[in-house]
Amino acid sequence: MKSLDEAPGSERDRESKNPERGNRYETSHYKSALLSDPWKPCRRPRAIVKEWLLTLRCCLGAMCGMEWYSYAALGIVMAFLSFLMDLSVTKLLSAHQWLYMKLEGNSLLQFVCWTLYPACLCAVASSFSHNICPFSTGSGIPEVRTMLSGIEMPHYLSLTNMFAKFLGLICTLAAGSTVFLGKVGPFVHLSTMVGSYLSKFFTPVQANKKDKAAGEMLVVAAAVGVASCFGAPVSGVLFSVEVMSSHFALTHYVPCFFAAACGALTFRLFTVWSGDEETLQALFKTNFPTALPFYPLEILLFAFLGLLCGAASCCYLSCHRWILQFTKTNPVFIKMLATEKGLYSGMVAFLLASVTFPNFAGQYMASKYTMKQLLTSLLDSRQWSSQFHNASVHLEPEPLLEWSSPGSPVYLPLAFFLLMKMWMLVLACTLPVPAGYFMPVFVYGAALGRLHAEGVAYVFSSGVTSGQQWASINPGGYALAGAAALSGAVTHTLSPALLAIELTGQFSHAGPVLLATLLANALARSGHRSSFYDALSVSKRLPHLPSLKRACPQLPSVAVGQFLGVKPIQLQKAAGPAEIEHAVKTSSQTQIPVVDSHESPILLGFVLRSELRIFLRHAAAETLEKHLDEVCCVRPASVLLSPHSTVQEAHGVLSLVGDQTLYVTERGRLVGLLTWSEMKKILEDLAREI
Amino acid sequence: MKSLDEAPGSERDRESKNPERGNRYETSHYKSALLSDPWKPCRRPRAIVKEWLLTLRCCLGAMCGMEWYSYAALGIVMAFLSFLMDLSVTKLLSAHQWLYMKLEGNSLLQFVCWTLYPACLCAVASSFSHNICPFSTGSGIPEVRTMLSGIEMPHYLSLTNMFAKFLGLICTLAAGSTVFLGKVGPFVHLSTMVGSYLSKFFTPVQANKKDKAAGEMLVVAAAVGVASCFGAPVSGVLFSVEVMSSHFALTHYVPCFFAAACGALTFRLFTVWSGDEETLQALFKTNFPTALPFYPLEILLFAFLGLLCGAASCCYLSCHRWILQFTKTNPVFIKMLATEKGLYSGMVAFLLASVTFPNFAGQYMASKYTMKQLLTSLLDSRQWSSQFHNASVHLEPEPLLEWSSPGSPVYLPLAFFLLMKMWMLVLACTLPVPAGYFMPVFVYGAALGRLHAEGVAYVFSSGVTSGQQWASINPGGYALAGAAALSGAVTHTLSPALLAIELTGQFSHAGPVLLATLLANALARSGHRSSFYDALSVSKRLPHLPSLKRACPQLPSVAVGQFLGVKPIQLQKAAGPAEIEHAVKTSSQTQIPVVDSHESPILLGFVLRSELRIFLRHAAAETLEKHLDEVCCVRPASVLLSPHSTVQEAHGVLSLVGDQTLYVTERGRLVGLLTWSEMKKILEDLAREI
Repeated sequence: MKSLDEAPGSERDRESKNPERGNRYETSHYKSALLSDPWKPCRRPRAIVKEWLLTLRCCLGAMCGMEWYSYAALGIVMAFLSFLMDLSVTKLLSAHQWLYMKLEGNSLLQFVCWTLYPACLCAVASSFSHNICPFSTGSGIPEVRTMLSGIEMPHYLSLTNMFAKFLGLICTLAAGSTVFLGKVGPFVHLSTMVGSYLSKFFTPVQANKKDKAAGEMLVVAAAVGVASCFGAPVSGVLFSVEVMSSHFALTHYVPCFFAAACGALTFRLFTVWSGDEETLQALFKTNFPTALPFYPLEILLFAFLGLLCGAASCCYLSCHRWILQFTKTNPVFIKMLATEKGLYSGMVAFLLASVTFPNFAGQYMASKYTMKQLLTSLLDSRQWSSQFHNASVHLEPEPLLEWSSPGSPVYLPLAFFLLMKMWMLVLACTLPVPAGYFMPVFVYGAALGRLHAEGVAYVFSSGVTSGQQWASINPGGYALAGAAALSGAVTHTLSPALLAIELTGQFSHAGPVLLATLLANALARSGHRSSFYDALSVSKRLPHLPSLKRACPQLPSVAVGQFLGVKPIQLQKAAGPAEIEHAVKTSSQTQIPVVDSHESPILLGFVLRSELRIFLRHAAAETLEKHLDEVCCVRPASVLLSPHSTVQEAHGVLSLVGDQTLYVTERGRLVGLLTWSEMKKILEDLAREI
Repeated sequence: MKSLDEAPGSERDRESKNPERGNRYETSHYKSALLSDPWKPCRRPRAIVKEWLLTLRCCLGAMCGMEWYSYAALGIVMAFLSFLMDLSVTKLLSAHQWLYMKLEGNSLLQFVCWTLYPACLCAVASSFSHNICPFSTGSGIPEVRTMLSGIEMPHYLSLTNMFAKFLGLICTLAAGSTVFLGKVGPFVHLSTMVGSYLSKFFTPVQANKKDKAAGEMLVVAAAVGVASCFGAPVSGVLFSVEVMSSHFALTHYVPCFFAAACGALTFRLFTVWSGDEETLQALFKTNFPTALPFYPLEILLFAFLGLLCGAASCCYLSCHRWILQFTKTNPVFIKMLATEKGLYSGMVAFLLASVTFPNFAGQYMASKYTMKQLLTSLLDSRQWSSQFHNASVHLEPEPLLEWSSPGSPVYLPLAFFLLMKMWMLVLACTLPVPAGYFMPVFVYGAALGRLHAEGVAYVFSSGVTSGQQWASINPGGYALAGAAALSGAVTHTLSPALLAIELTGQFSHAGPVLLATLLANALARSGHRSSFYDALSVSKRLPHLPSLKRACPQLPSVAVGQFLGVKPIQLQKAAGPAEIEHAVKTSSQTQIPVVDSHESPILLGFVLRSELRIFLRHAAAETLEKHLDEVCCVRPASVLLSPHSTVQEAHGVLSLVGDQTLYVTERGRLVGLLTWSEMKKILEDLAREI
């Protein structure tokens, strides 16, 4: 009886003060459990090994909390997966290139090889992910954002999903630059799946701790996903800040940095160990001139580029929204995407590959390059136009190889590339395969920046005498700024500015890159337009409040009272065993509210389900009629909501109190309760109304 | 009557939809007010000018919200102030150097010049800030953190404080490297002051909007302070995230980036315009070799350096806590600091300057260098030991000039520097002048990193044959990592890692720098030690919850019910004019709670004070006895607290709901109310108990 009367926090406090005692108890408990089980072979050695492992865990736990090991493990595992994926994709891509080269001379066979390889890979990726786990298609970032806002979506974190997403993503990426899809989105999703498994593995078996650890792990995993994909820790953390729905808790800040640093360092160490690099370097290392990276007046050109990218992002986003709408309303598409996903993916990939066939339109858009080669060529610091003119003088006209077309100026292929890739990119977004949409936009932005710079250099080098300094500008810097600006504008984020810097290791252009990204974002966000991920969220009807808010600004100010359904199961303070037994049987909540009496349901607090169980057991043994308030401790509810508070307020308070149940009272009377699952239902209802 | 019945949000919504109409109304209102005032001269021209200005404001407001202009203005103003301060300090420092050089040959006069100049400057700074505004001493970051957590401290944002802080800081910085104090802390404080003025200037006259804008401006100002001080936008934003008490609201994210980018770009543009630099460069530009910045195995050395810096930070922090305690308990110190601040500052500066006199101990610790020169020399990528050996071969043995001492190895002056500066730094922290404590620690960490690297290079170059690669390591990289790690560990933040990169523009070492900073932080934070700013907060008894929590972990779980004083002024729903008049006169709240009746004070909601005023006016005119609930709209309180909720929970909910009043109810009955001013009192009570 005494133990029931203690304050709710005290038990947790005591345990946190004596973690060793708890662990020691656990150790001996495991050992005895193992020894007493007569069915298992080699009981003694196994018990010894298990004891050693648990002692090791005690020692590790004494140095720092077990969660830190799980963050480190997450970083290392994700870096390994990222490296493994890059390796497999490179092998598959070079196999395709080898085959294509071997067929030199026979255009028809080359065409078949060029088109069927990516078509088959996309069809495989699509059928595979559809059959194993339908939730594995797409980028995954909208789902991650929803989970980060507090909504539980267990089927998006399953092991089969991880498996399907990983293999499907390898196939998609191996389809190469013809399909033009990226890696980072699904990788963030993969990271959350691995993270949720690791957090289950590392945290002790306590419900309240487990939920908290899982929530923190999701935030950390978002940072690790970006960091281990590109070896860019700081932009990973910034990404993690940005994908949060409204507030970033500072308790997640250091874990994010720690795990992201582990992931990024391990990823770069893998490239060193594999012999690709001599030391830890940026992924797309550039060599911009450091003495005078840009003239101060070029800032204006960068600002203009930012606005240009903002406009391009608006165009891209409206195309994307249109095709999302089209695939949901056009009956042919609906039927095709519902039943024949593999066929659809294969057909679209075949179409895209036919267009990019090097003997056809592909020769004008550098289609032989992989995504990495494309980005490297665009980030080159030398001017293509000058190189083109003095091709005989230069020793390494390598980056021009694919972009040059004899007789025409160098910006024509760039312009053609931009024109074609716009609709191809939008079309590729409809493919039901695991794929990222960030990197394509990044490369597209780089091409836009390059075109802008080459154009400026051309204009000033031919004729205008005063612009000599403009004629020697570095187009690589503009490509960098364009990439960051466009990808930032499309996703409504600023972390791409830092990502561009971390990817290239080029800090000299930090100022202009940030400026261009900010201006592009300003243009893209103006008029409350929704971002790429917002559009996906709304299209998938995910219960993500910020996306809903952007799609329909008045929705979140709906009062929460409208959604409170039937009256919650409640106990009066003088409840006897019969009423309690009924409540325990019918309610699934861990906390059951207690009111004054059923006639005047003034909320007094709540009792824990576990205490009610103990009460029932005692009552059955003692056969004494006792009342609820005589035996159980009625804990006060610390935060209450009114039915007039808006959905947004309720969402904010729920995120603040974590996994507690919120009680809704009017004039002191209990009228409903609110948990994350109720909130999920409310948001799903709202999403359906749009 | 109808207007009173509307929902609280509707008016604001309507206004935000029609900003132009509001502005137009305002314009004509101003004009007519001006024209009708017969006392002012040149009424018509002034009215026209004012109208033009307001039209301009309308046009600007149509493009984007006025707050964006205020952020840009804040960045530009702070960059200008930063540049102005750097310029004045450089002039004052070179005047001192010129005088010292002129006195060459006469040691006594040189000593007088060397010691009295900083002593006088410190005495002036101290007396000045004491007499003009006593709140202007110290770093200001503890106060900024407190204000960011939601507590209002108007005297820390006054114009006199800004004036005193700015001039005092110039004096402190002009005292040079003998006193060894920095700029960034006071600059963040200055930025918040400028920000609060700009936000008053730019936001329309509406109480609720004003409070929100002021809160947002504080967060933005923290980012701008760091960004404009060093030209480092991203670390400014990260700093702003870190100084928040528990949650960073995502609505502040883009404003922070925007203002920080404006500040950093303008700051760098000023250096270009002043002719110091040819283009926008990092403040301490380094030229580390880019081909092979470091060997992969050097990661271990960086990790060790991180741990070393963590240990050094623990040592420094305990010294600092000791001296804080000592100055508060020693009667001589108490008396001196209370009455003779100027004298004390002068004496301490004299002592520090005597120790660093170049003909005395100063020759072994490079005391002739300014802070900037010190940092530049420490970040040099060449090994001093090898330079020392081949001094005749090298063309530029410049960085060695001050550090070399004939006949002794190069690490002896470094070790002596570290040993002496430790106590000097701790002593300098007691000076009652406006001063930053970040940069000294940063330089100290750089020296520690340099010593580590020079030691490793020496050990491996003399004897160990297998360590040839270690003998060619770049000590500049270690200095960078050490600087970031130590300053991060002392302040319990991670933004110094990015600051080190942004200050030097050296991205190749990002991984190791981050690793060292993380490890140093881990060591410094272990065992719930409080950070440098936490110690200052607790010592100054500031109402800052996270600091109090770290000093006394069980404090914030005290129930809020303990602190609720007298019963708040409340109205019953059937209140007549007499009761309402009494309530309006005695209460100072803008919202007055309404209960069922005084016998059963079940909370129904609240009425606005303004509505009560209107009610009283109507009642006086109509002489009809009406009741409160017949006329006024009783708005429901959306979030309620229970007296059992902890101070931390209450703090969290208050930060979430902004400047609303929180009602505390028990079983539906109103027992108290909670606003930020109540919370301030509670926290001050808690601080006094420590």
